[in-house]
Amino acid sequence: MRRDSWQGTNLPKVSGYNRAVVLDAIRGHDGISRVELADRTGLTAQTMSNIVRGLIGDGLVTEDGHAPSTGGKRRSRLRLVADSQHAVGLHLDHERLTGVLLDLSGSPLRRSERAIPPDSSSSTVIRALNRMFTQLVRSSGTDRLLGVGLAVPSALDSSRRGLAYGSWAGVPLADLVQDRLGVPVVMDGDGIAAAVGEHWSGGEHRTGSFLYVHLGSRVGIGLVLDDQVHRGTSGNAGEIAHVPGAGGRECVCGRRGCLDAYCSMSAVVADWRASANGTGPASAETVHAEYDQLRRAASDGDALAVKTLRQAASRLGQALAPVVGVLDLDRVVLGGPALRHVDEHIRPRVAKALDAYRSSPGGCRVESGLVGDDAGAVGAAALVLDQAHAPRLAPLPG
Amino acid sequence: MRRDSWQGTNLPKVSGYNRAVVLDAIRGHDGISRVELADRTGLTAQTMSNIVRGLIGDGLVTEDGHAPSTGGKRRSRLRLVADSQHAVGLHLDHERLTGVLLDLSGSPLRRSERAIPPDSSSSTVIRALNRMFTQLVRSSGTDRLLGVGLAVPSALDSSRRGLAYGSWAGVPLADLVQDRLGVPVVMDGDGIAAAVGEHWSGGEHRTGSFLYVHLGSRVGIGLVLDDQVHRGTSGNAGEIAHVPGAGGRECVCGRRGCLDAYCSMSAVVADWRASANGTGPASAETVHAEYDQLRRAASDGDALAVKTLRQAASRLGQALAPVVGVLDLDRVVLGGPALRHVDEHIRPRVAKALDAYRSSPGGCRVESGLVGDDAGAVGAAALVLDQAHAPRLAPLPG
Repeated sequence: MRRDSWQGTNLPKVSGYNRAVVLDAIRGHDGISRVELADRTGLTAQTMSNIVRGLIGDGLVTEDGHAPSTGGKRRSRLRLVADSQHAVGLHLDHERLTGVLLDLSGSPLRRSERAIPPDSSSSTVIRALNRMFTQLVRSSGTDRLLGVGLAVPSALDSSRRGLAYGSWAGVPLADLVQDRLGVPVVMDGDGIAAAVGEHWSGGEHRTGSFLYVHLGSRVGIGLVLDDQVHRGTSGNAGEIAHVPGAGGRECVCGRRGCLDAYCSMSAVVADWRASANGTGPASAETVHAEYDQLRRAASDGDALAVKTLRQAASRLGQALAPVVGVLDLDRVVLGGPALRHVDEHIRPRVAKALDAYRSSPGGCRVESGLVGDDAGAVGAAALVLDQAHAPRLAPLPG
Repeated sequence: MRRDSWQGTNLPKVSGYNRAVVLDAIRGHDGISRVELADRTGLTAQTMSNIVRGLIGDGLVTEDGHAPSTGGKRRSRLRLVADSQHAVGLHLDHERLTGVLLDLSGSPLRRSERAIPPDSSSSTVIRALNRMFTQLVRSSGTDRLLGVGLAVPSALDSSRRGLAYGSWAGVPLADLVQDRLGVPVVMDGDGIAAAVGEHWSGGEHRTGSFLYVHLGSRVGIGLVLDDQVHRGTSGNAGEIAHVPGAGGRECVCGRRGCLDAYCSMSAVVADWRASANGTGPASAETVHAEYDQLRRAASDGDALAVKTLRQAASRLGQALAPVVGVLDLDRVVLGGPALRHVDEHIRPRVAKALDAYRSSPGGCRVESGLVGDDAGAVGAAALVLDQAHAPRLAPLPG
C-alpha cells in the first residue's frame, strides 16, 4: 500500500467505525446490555443507543430477555441475529473442493466437499465451483447472501484475481467465478483466508496478533497483526511453501529445498511410503486417501507414521521460527484438514523447533485452530463477513 | 497487544487524529496551501482552517509567502516551524555512544560521538549518556525539548525498560537514564528506532511498508507495515541477530549459527583477519578501528576485503529472505554506520540473496537509507517525535 498523504477522518467514517465496533462487541458477547456495551467500547450512552437502534432496524441485532440489574429498570439483552446475513466460502485445494455457507456469527450452516481430478482445466473447476455454490444456496434457501469468498492454494498474480503459477497462470479465476455465479467474489490465498476465519470466529481467543498455519495439501500462512490481517505488497503475505530452507530436495517449482518439498501432503505421504516399503511418491489421485491411511496409522501408534509426521512438523517449525522471531509473536495457530487426528504429533514438534530458535524473551504458544478441518472454506466465507463488518484501525488512508 | 473489545471513537480522538494528519502533510509538503491541504487530506475547508489555526497558535506552523493561485485571492503558504520543538536521541552501541539533537522536521542540529570502554558498568554508561545529553542541550541552547529517545543494541526485557541479556540484564536502564536526565525517556532496540527515524525523515520516499536493516556493531531490524512500526508482543520485533541460519559457527550467546556470529562488525573483522593473515578475532577496543581499515581496503579495491563484505552481505540476505517473503515486502532499506563507504559491495549481494529466495511474484528493491550513519541516534530522537505527532491508524483500541 502506498499513500500520498494520510487521509483525515469525518463523521460518516467515524460513525461507520463505531457501528462496526458495536456489532463486534455484540457478536463477541451474546446477551450484552447497552450499559455493558458502553463500558466495553468507551462510547457514550447516547451514541451507543443510536447505533443499537440502527443495527436493530437493519435486522442484524435483536433484544430479548433481561440481564440482571443492580437496581432500577431491568436491562434488555442484545443478541446478534446470526441468520440475518450469509456468506459462501469455497476452498479450492489440489484435487479437492470444499464449500461452506456461514451465518453472520461465523457458524457453518451447510458444508459440501468433492474431489477434483488432477490437472482439471480451469473451466471444469469453475463449473464444479458453480455447482457447489448453487447447491449450498439452494439447500439453505438463503436470500440474504452477502457474497462469495474463494481461497486458493497458490500465490496470486499481480491483478490479485488469478493465480501466479501453474497451468492456470493468466486465468482471471476470481472474475470468471464471479461472472459464472453472478455474485461478488473476493479471493485470497488459503493461509490468509483461514487466518481471517480464525480471527472472525475465534472471538476473544483470537484477538491481537498471531500467525496461522493452514495445513491443507500444501502449507499456507496467514498473519494477523494487531487485529488486522496482513496481506503484503502483492497480496501474497504468508507464501512460505516455496521459501527454501535446509536440505536440497527437489521441489515441483523447480528449485531445491522448499518447504513444500518436505511438508506438503504429497511429500509427507511419499516420505512415509519410502520409509515403510520403499515405493515411490503417491499419485495425485490417491494422495488424500493415502494421507488418511497415514494419519490412521499414526493414531494407532505406528512408529514409522508418527516419525514421518514429526519430521515434517520439525521442519515446519524451523521454517516458521525466523518469521515468528522477527515478528515477535507469542502465538502460532495450526489448522486445516492435514492436522485432523494427528495434532498431538505435530503441535509439540512445531513448538520445540520454535523454542530452539527463540532469540528474544518470552515464549510462543502453539495452539490448534478453533475452526477445524474446513478452515480454508470457512475462512473464504469469513473474507466476505470481515470486509463487510470488521472494525478497521480506521480511518484508513485512501 | 491484547484487547478485550474494540474501542469506539469520539470527537476528541478524531480531532487529535486530524491534527496529526494535517501536521504530517505540512511537514511533507513545504509551502502547501490550505486548499491543497484540504485536497490531500480529504478534510473540509472549515475543519482544515480550524486545525491550521490551532497549529499556528501553538507555534508549530507558520504562514509566509503566497502560492500561485488560479484566480481570486492569493493563497498563503504553510510551513513547519522546524525549530519549534526538539528531541534528543542517544544510541548506545557496543563500545560506542552517539547522540543527536533533532528539530521537528527530523534534521539533526547537533551530533556527538564517543567511545565507551568494553565491559563498562551501567552506571559508567549512564554518566556518559548524561554528559552527552547535557552537552547537546547546552550547546544548542534549546528550551523546547520534547523528550529523549534511547536506542539499544539488544532485546528488551519484559518491562521494556531494560535489556534482556548480557551483564546489564535486570538493570532498568531507561528508568535510570530518565531519573538522571530529568526528562521523559522512551527506549527501543536500535533496529526499530532506526526504522522509525527513516519513516519520520523519509517523507513520501518511505511511506507504506518496508523492512529496515540497521548495520551497527550488530544487525538489528525494524518493520514498518502500512505506515505503523511493528513492535511485536514483547517489544522485540526485529531481533534477528540470534536467529540461527545455515552454518555452525559458535555465537557469543552460546548457541551456534546465529546471524551475529557471521554478520556483526566483530565477526566481519575476524573473518577479514583470518583470510588476510590468519590472526584471531579483533579485540573489543579495536573493532571499530579495524572495521574502518576493512572498509578503506574494500573502497581501494582490496579483493579480500571486498570478498569478506560480500560474504557477510549474502548471509544477511539469506536471513532476511524468509521474512521478506512471508511478509511480502517490496522494499528493504539498509542503513547504519557499518554501511558507510561500502554499500556498493553490500547492497547487491543482499538483493541477490533475496531474489534467489523469492516465492511470490514481484521483486524486492534494496535501497540505502536516507538518514545515514547516525540512523540509530536519529531514530532514537524520532521515537519521541513519532510518539508526539505521527498520525496513527487510530482510534486505537484502548
